[in-house]
Amino acid sequence: MCPVEGNQKSNHTNGNGVTTNGNCSGGGNNDVFISVDRGDPKMYYTFWKNVDDKCTVTIKASELMSYFADLDQGGVFYQLPEFSAAVHQVHRVVGNAVTEGRYIIGGTGSSQLFTVALRALASTVNNTNTDNNLKKKRQIPVVCAEPFYSCYQEALEEEKSEIYKWQGDAKTFDEEGPYVEVVTTPNNPDGSIREPVVKKEGGLVICDLAYYWPQYTPITTPADYDVMLFTLSKATGHAGSRVGWAIVKDKEIAMRMIKLMSLITIGTCHEGQLRATKILEFVADSYAPLENGKLNSNGNAHVVEQPSEKFFEFSHRVLADRWKRLRAVVKRCGVFNLPEYSPEYCNFMNKNIHPNPAYAWMELKNGEDAEKLMNELKIQTRGGPRFGVSSKYTRVSMMECDDTFNQLLDRLSTLES
Amino acid sequence: MCPVEGNQKSNHTNGNGVTTNGNCSGGGNNDVFISVDRGDPKMYYTFWKNVDDKCTVTIKASELMSYFADLDQGGVFYQLPEFSAAVHQVHRVVGNAVTEGRYIIGGTGSSQLFTVALRALASTVNNTNTDNNLKKKRQIPVVCAEPFYSCYQEALEEEKSEIYKWQGDAKTFDEEGPYVEVVTTPNNPDGSIREPVVKKEGGLVICDLAYYWPQYTPITTPADYDVMLFTLSKATGHAGSRVGWAIVKDKEIAMRMIKLMSLITIGTCHEGQLRATKILEFVADSYAPLENGKLNSNGNAHVVEQPSEKFFEFSHRVLADRWKRLRAVVKRCGVFNLPEYSPEYCNFMNKNIHPNPAYAWMELKNGEDAEKLMNELKIQTRGGPRFGVSSKYTRVSMMECDDTFNQLLDRLSTLES
Repeated sequence: MCPVEGNQKSNHTNGNGVTTNGNCSGGGNNDVFISVDRGDPKMYYTFWKNVDDKCTVTIKASELMSYFADLDQGGVFYQLPEFSAAVHQVHRVVGNAVTEGRYIIGGTGSSQLFTVALRALASTVNNTNTDNNLKKKRQIPVVCAEPFYSCYQEALEEEKSEIYKWQGDAKTFDEEGPYVEVVTTPNNPDGSIREPVVKKEGGLVICDLAYYWPQYTPITTPADYDVMLFTLSKATGHAGSRVGWAIVKDKEIAMRMIKLMSLITIGTCHEGQLRATKILEFVADSYAPLENGKLNSNGNAHVVEQPSEKFFEFSHRVLADRWKRLRAVVKRCGVFNLPEYSPEYCNFMNKNIHPNPAYAWMELKNGEDAEKLMNELKIQTRGGPRFGVSSKYTRVSMMECDDTFNQLLDRLSTLES
Repeated sequence: MCPVEGNQKSNHTNGNGVTTNGNCSGGGNNDVFISVDRGDPKMYYTFWKNVDDKCTVTIKASELMSYFADLDQGGVFYQLPEFSAAVHQVHRVVGNAVTEGRYIIGGTGSSQLFTVALRALASTVNNTNTDNNLKKKRQIPVVCAEPFYSCYQEALEEEKSEIYKWQGDAKTFDEEGPYVEVVTTPNNPDGSIREPVVKKEGGLVICDLAYYWPQYTPITTPADYDVMLFTLSKATGHAGSRVGWAIVKDKEIAMRMIKLMSLITIGTCHEGQLRATKILEFVADSYAPLENGKLNSNGNAHVVEQPSEKFFEFSHRVLADRWKRLRAVVKRCGVFNLPEYSPEYCNFMNKNIHPNPAYAWMELKNGEDAEKLMNELKIQTRGGPRFGVSSKYTRVSMMECDDTFNQLLDRLSTLES
């Protein structure tokens, strides 16, 4: 998930990664803002451009017309069976989540699924409450350890639900009764590995695993929570598709989520599902060629020719290189602290690797306003208060295009402590 | 908009119109339920199959990757400029809505836009209220003249918003203060042409024009409401794309809706937008070839070769034929009443035409339960109570595939009064 807003005067690229409004690098023009505020995953463009014709989706006029894509896959009527299969396949290959025997429920990005999961969980709690007055009055608290992803709070406060409410930091939460804790791991914004912190009776957990992929962090174990959220945006960089999926253990919760998806948007865009299927299959097939007799979404058993550097190796290399360069600049200018991460054995890469989070969580050493300082350098970032913490922190996306990232380093280099 | 649920034992076809679970016709097997409950627009498949290769969308691996499709079109960052252009073009050609100077805001079907428009309108009303206690307590009533589309009530009651609540029939609404009236015209389920009925001070209107297309009703004037909703599902039959659009007059409301779209789903699926663009352009171009020098979404100025029977002529002919046949059967069996509609001059067709609504609103003459009677014939319909009225009514989709429609007539023919 990723919020999209803020100063739109900064330059940006269009859906094809082509600059449409000014130059992605600012053309070396230091008067133009660069934006590393949002989590737009533009760094992946180079990889996909290289395999453009090997991973093409074609849709004819009469295809994907019905509301129904499938009625047999656990009741997810709007879901292409090949999409569910591709999600299972990629998790099996990467080993980052348990999917066997779970419900896969597609959403319009994981943002939609966050709300849908929350409603499903909250209404289950409310349904077990037989006192009607209490039922009406009780808003389930939703908490998350700070620093928490800025959009959870914004989305919930905007929604103004009668049945749940945003209650901020999980670490200071000590009310009795049911609650929902959102666990983002690796965490957005600070890249830390997390577990639930409240651990009280009546607690329900939504685990946002948007960044639990090998390019960002070592895969140490398959995640195994009751409700887990993933998004194509951060897995492969296809943010424009707005494709996310929930992996849900409990049948009742899953059925409730599907019912809600039906009421809210009558499912998700089938074209986006088809695209996601193609992209996920391409990635998964490059690591684990199709089993004997299995057909891919093209209806044939041939594995598409793969590039010499596979997807996770490419993206891990780019992020590792960027982190190395950022740390060097930050060390040299001496103004910021960056979190340190310990290497761990990655079961997917089969070696020890360092985490390379999608965001740099930068702390201004003198305790002043970090976002403000960045603004003076014409670098648009997202300050600590949006994540529930001090303004001495600010979040910097590591996933922008090369030109923007290079500009970021150039501008940070002008700082002296 | 269209709800998708109910008895899933009935047969159905997949996204390609190909039967996946039993035969679309029931194979003449009267033990198998046929479903005319939902508004799945399968009748359009035949038209699009015929132009399959003339209206194909191809998407390469690196295309449509960013969250951003455009930042210059009135702030709709997630919207392809060619999608907005195609929406303007098709309304200009058909003459069914004023779009000049209006904001076009895409959504995941019009269902999503219904909620987003409601939230935007309700929060505007609440923002002008400076008394904080009143602000908290006041839920804006949302009303619609009965029979009203079943999903309005279901979606709002499910949402459990603090700021608005479903309050049912507009005709009996007489509270003071702000309210939102939903006007569906032509109406779902009964095909009637409607205007606001409450007309009090402080009232805001959302106009759902899903069925205001020449195949369903004569186009008498361009609709000109503050907030108007359309959906690709009912315009061209591409329900699986989940593409809808709002046409919004007021800048503040439009900006609020875009902000909400950003928070809820970070916009809409770009692949779906591209598909919708292609389909809408194809339809519009067949009536009004591209102006000199204008380029279509392929980047060329050639109009795609068109079929001998154009889209609205095809769909009008199919619906007119079905209505004629249904009326004949209903008259013969003598058990039901059907609404009568007067012909009017259609500015698009340039002649007098009869309305051919997307649904038949059938009234059981003896006053008994119409849905129950249909169930006995193994015809799944949607009964009056779902639309806020008596069970002597039931709604029958006229948009199913030919086989299902023929089965419907066969089964109705077995009734005797």
